[in-house]
Amino acid sequence: MLIVLRPDVTAAQQEALEQLIRSRGLVPHAIPGVARTAIGITGNPGALDPEPYRDLPGVADAIAVSQPYKLVSREWKPDQTVVMVRGVPIGGPRVIVMAGPCSVESREQVHEAGRGVSRAGARMLRGGAFKPRTSPYEFQGLKEEGLRLLAEVRAETGLPIVTEVKDTATLPAVAEVADLLQIGARNMQNFSLLEAVGDLRIPVLLKRGMSATLKELLMAAEYIVSRGNPNVILCERGIRTFETMTRNTFDINAIPMLKERSHLPVIADPSHGVGVRSAVGPVAKAAIAAGADGVIIEVHPRPSEALSDGAQSLDIAQFTELMAGLSKIAEAVGRSL
Amino acid sequence: MLIVLRPDVTAAQQEALEQLIRSRGLVPHAIPGVARTAIGITGNPGALDPEPYRDLPGVADAIAVSQPYKLVSREWKPDQTVVMVRGVPIGGPRVIVMAGPCSVESREQVHEAGRGVSRAGARMLRGGAFKPRTSPYEFQGLKEEGLRLLAEVRAETGLPIVTEVKDTATLPAVAEVADLLQIGARNMQNFSLLEAVGDLRIPVLLKRGMSATLKELLMAAEYIVSRGNPNVILCERGIRTFETMTRNTFDINAIPMLKERSHLPVIADPSHGVGVRSAVGPVAKAAIAAGADGVIIEVHPRPSEALSDGAQSLDIAQFTELMAGLSKIAEAVGRSL
Amino acid sequence: MLIVLRPDVTAAQQEALEQLIRSRGLVPHAIPGVARTAIGITGNPGALDPEPYRDLPGVADAIAVSQPYKLVSREWKPDQTVVMVRGVPIGGPRVIVMAGPCSVESREQVHEAGRGVSRAGARMLRGGAFKPRTSPYEFQGLKEEGLRLLAEVRAETGLPIVTEVKDTATLPAVAEVADLLQIGARNMQNFSLLEAVGDLRIPVLLKRGMSATLKELLMAAEYIVSRGNPNVILCERGIRTFETMTRNTFDINAIPMLKERSHLPVIADPSHGVGVRSAVGPVAKAAIAAGADGVIIEVHPRPSEALSDGAQSLDIAQFTELMAGLSKIAEAVGRSL
Amino acid sequence: MLIVLRPDVTAAQQEALEQLIRSRGLVPHAIPGVARTAIGITGNPGALDPEPYRDLPGVADAIAVSQPYKLVSREWKPDQTVVMVRGVPIGGPRVIVMAGPCSVESREQVHEAGRGVSRAGARMLRGGAFKPRTSPYEFQGLKEEGLRLLAEVRAETGLPIVTEVKDTATLPAVAEVADLLQIGARNMQNFSLLEAVGDLRIPVLLKRGMSATLKELLMAAEYIVSRGNPNVILCERGIRTFETMTRNTFDINAIPMLKERSHLPVIADPSHGVGVRSAVGPVAKAAIAAGADGVIIEVHPRPSEALSDGAQSLDIAQFTELMAGLSKIAEAVGRSL
Repeated sequence: MLIVLRPDVTAAQQEALEQLIRSRGLVPHAIPGVARTAIGITGNPGALDPEPYRDLPGVADAIAVSQPYKLVSREWKPDQTVVMVRGVPIGGPRVIVMAGPCSVESREQVHEAGRGVSRAGARMLRGGAFKPRTSPYEFQGLKEEGLRLLAEVRAETGLPIVTEVKDTATLPAVAEVADLLQIGARNMQNFSLLEAVGDLRIPVLLKRGMSATLKELLMAAEYIVSRGNPNVILCERGIRTFETMTRNTFDINAIPMLKERSHLPVIADPSHGVGVRSAVGPVAKAAIAAGADGVIIEVHPRPSEALSDGAQSLDIAQFTELMAGLSKIAEAVGRSL
Repeated sequence: MLIVLRPDVTAAQQEALEQLIRSRGLVPHAIPGVARTAIGITGNPGALDPEPYRDLPGVADAIAVSQPYKLVSREWKPDQTVVMVRGVPIGGPRVIVMAGPCSVESREQVHEAGRGVSRAGARMLRGGAFKPRTSPYEFQGLKEEGLRLLAEVRAETGLPIVTEVKDTATLPAVAEVADLLQIGARNMQNFSLLEAVGDLRIPVLLKRGMSATLKELLMAAEYIVSRGNPNVILCERGIRTFETMTRNTFDINAIPMLKERSHLPVIADPSHGVGVRSAVGPVAKAAIAAGADGVIIEVHPRPSEALSDGAQSLDIAQFTELMAGLSKIAEAVGRSL
Repeated sequence: MLIVLRPDVTAAQQEALEQLIRSRGLVPHAIPGVARTAIGITGNPGALDPEPYRDLPGVADAIAVSQPYKLVSREWKPDQTVVMVRGVPIGGPRVIVMAGPCSVESREQVHEAGRGVSRAGARMLRGGAFKPRTSPYEFQGLKEEGLRLLAEVRAETGLPIVTEVKDTATLPAVAEVADLLQIGARNMQNFSLLEAVGDLRIPVLLKRGMSATLKELLMAAEYIVSRGNPNVILCERGIRTFETMTRNTFDINAIPMLKERSHLPVIADPSHGVGVRSAVGPVAKAAIAAGADGVIIEVHPRPSEALSDGAQSLDIAQFTELMAGLSKIAEAVGRSL
Repeated sequence: MLIVLRPDVTAAQQEALEQLIRSRGLVPHAIPGVARTAIGITGNPGALDPEPYRDLPGVADAIAVSQPYKLVSREWKPDQTVVMVRGVPIGGPRVIVMAGPCSVESREQVHEAGRGVSRAGARMLRGGAFKPRTSPYEFQGLKEEGLRLLAEVRAETGLPIVTEVKDTATLPAVAEVADLLQIGARNMQNFSLLEAVGDLRIPVLLKRGMSATLKELLMAAEYIVSRGNPNVILCERGIRTFETMTRNTFDINAIPMLKERSHLPVIADPSHGVGVRSAVGPVAKAAIAAGADGVIIEVHPRPSEALSDGAQSLDIAQFTELMAGLSKIAEAVGRSL
């Protein structure tokens, strides 16, 4: 069971509550967040009844743990959450397109990409500076230099930046530049990193792990929100299955299921979701038709020269053409780009 | 390697060809089809060069087996195939909606469903008479009586019928009534059944197996087409993954990948693909946005009373509302319902 | 719910029972088997209470359908089943090794294989005559000629034969020769074939489908046993996962789980389970260590020349060496080869 | 391509080499390790020929990147690696059993467990102090207090300790106590953590990710070894599949495949691999039969009271009985406990 304390709880009230819990043979665990503190209870043989705890002094709510996530659920907050990213609302009536290269590779490349996607109507710029790579021998990004280049392009185009943070050590550097912090699929259950971004107020784009269930994705989001950062955007990016013709299997079901279960915005990454250039557009359209609040698409000025993910990147012309198609789908579901 | 014989090949030409193959230490296997015969060659240690076989008398083509499917591929036939089902074209500019109950349960139920989906704009009626069931103790369909009821509704509404054929023994009975023969997911690699429907000319709706790769689906279609029945429609219906919040994982990637690799029409089954009523509509829209030539949707007058698949069936009102949404998506991709 | 009738039930008793069911607004479905008949009940909104049916005239038992399999379960029959295959007991204290080529390719090949595996201590000969193949252009077996060759080798070596039956059409031919009828993975849910072998008394080796859950495997076995054929042997042969270094993922967990849930013998197919020659031996040992009642192994006199599955076949020398290793493992778990 | 520098390379040699690479239009990336530095090359359109680089001053080797792992491969080092953990050799002729509770919960519990498994013949003690948990509301371990208790039990029993390190922040605390640092499945691709343990010399137990391929596991190990820590032990702990009767699917194939491809020791975690108490023993036996160098088993004095993983924990009596069975299997494959 989880006891959520009121923001104005006193130290004495909290101490009294923990005493009470211990006196019943249970173990209290304080879970401090920036906005509020909660007390988890363990040591109970079966389910606990939350009723007797709800009216105690300093207590905001008591939650049965049979619900493994709560703060991110629609039951808890029926209204759709809109996350503001440097003035761009995500989760509102407009469908947001984020685009840019997988990795920042050079000043020329990222400027060219930024200008191109901006002209085509993208609302945010994506680009990786710190790249987690499967092999230690692969290109791992331009790091701080990459962040500086992204900031340059933002200054020029006005596009907010989404970029990946791969560990707590480089979080301060990334957080200084990023408007939206991306947690990659491999880090979806890096709980220390989740807690660290939960202690900030910068919006977080949380990608689903390669074999994470939707319930696990929601629990990962709960880690962030329960620390006090409510600005979480969920991202479906394809799961690992037996199919080998595509890089991943984009789980289109995830879009309506997550929208129904959670009030958080949901965006789609069709580039990783299918991993085949010619199919990125159709999958992006599908995601918007299914209710996604946005899409994030890999675009490179010259995909054949890309240091990573070239096979799934669109060039500027292909992206520009796709934008027209996405716009029509958005209108068909009562929204706009 | 596969040698495709000309329709006018003579017995003497075929015999001479088989002799030649044997004289090279290889084994010829005649693969008779209704429209044409092919000769498969085995016993070769590595890849064979098809060139020397192409100009022999009676030979239409020689195909390297490194391509495990051929007749269904876009390379072989770049033009999109349109399959005519009792006057309804599948694979053309119009997106076709097939709808009706999982199982035919009673005269009243199937008439009510038929009238309802017809009024809402469906172009075909689905309904199961012979039901393959995981447990021997589950309802296995009304069988011949079910087929009769489907024919009644067709007579009333004019909607062509798609219904499942579960084995070769009941194929004659089903083929007498069905306008489109459905091969279910569990039978995708029931090669004897594939060959049997390949010897007919009735259109076939071939559902992807629960853990079949797209390549395997195309090879299963090749079984049917290579027997002489070119009227095959592919159907994505969700694959089995680790996710448990949904019944299956609808593989949206399959739509553009199949359309690119094959000239056959591709339709989507969102009902089985997600298995959760509230998500059927969004997934159906997604499939059309991604390029599907049609969708097949489970509709029941009273889903809560359904003998099978109630949790994923829409009622008539829900289906009618969905049709308006599907129509808008079809227009957004330059098609119509 | 399922009502199992007594073997001596009279037509009048059965009719009265069906009347009673209908009078309660439910639908009776007779499920005839060779040994006994059952009546399935559908049309009930929720779970039915079996109690009121148990004492009716002609009724042997009433079974709540919440248990999707029953006759194959340990609860129903706590004693381990031993299936006799032409004098070879499967499920008893001795671990049975079945070996031979994937496909029967020639007289010389199958005789050489048969003699070799017999000398090495195998107790049964495996070999495919009718081969289901993913592509229509692959070698599909020697068919009737293959069966004749298997019978020749049995006459010479005394080894009983296990061979695959791929459809109901060829079942009579296969059943005339086979001592153990193999149902392949792709046919695990070919219910018509399951029913057909359920109407015989020849032992059946039922392979798990490529993506079948253990529960579904048990329900498939229930199809056979509920028709009156109790001689079913379950076979784990690897499932389909994301891993690409091996052909399948052998599910070692399946061995203890099936042995615990069911009284039927369980054997392992390490050849398909891993699909890499060097790993077949270790996986075979693992299966016996985990409690398997036998293993079935692909052995070919010259694997490099095999028309199918060469990469996973052992040669005679490798198999002979492996037998010594298997024998030690069998002894370590208190059994013998 | 990867250029491995000699330990005695001079700064001038390294600079000259990087100049040469740039002069060819390529980009050098220094990858510093404790024991040696390597230079990765990117920016090449196709595969590079390593030959011209091998004889340059200061170069130890040049490696084509088509091999995504190298230092951990059998080709690189044919001899089996034996990792010494506080005097206990892992990878040698003796099969090592590690046992203990999932989480350290109290002094009494961990002492009781430690004494029990020691008496039964375990060679190492496992126990979690810092616990990564899927939900933020679950028990997350006794942390530093847990480490102190483990050290107490080591002092009493002499058993070396294996315990999980969940992030770089707590690595120093864990490294002070642990004899073998466990990287959990969720952290297999937490590259920052891999690099951090790669900079130490404490042995590392690297668990396979829930949906990691064997190739990815080997690349994760390469991260550690390429930083200079050669003391890596691979651990198969079950993968995520569609099967729901068990917690995971233990990939028995992984044991022989990893042993063949890599010189690193391989151990098995049957507790997580199957997640069902009654099946832990059979799967442990299977792993040893397949060639595992050890097993790690969850044992709790009173599993029904465990705060985590109770359903898969053995009690002391069950573990003691299992040890006798494991010993027989070890002997059957020519080893001993």
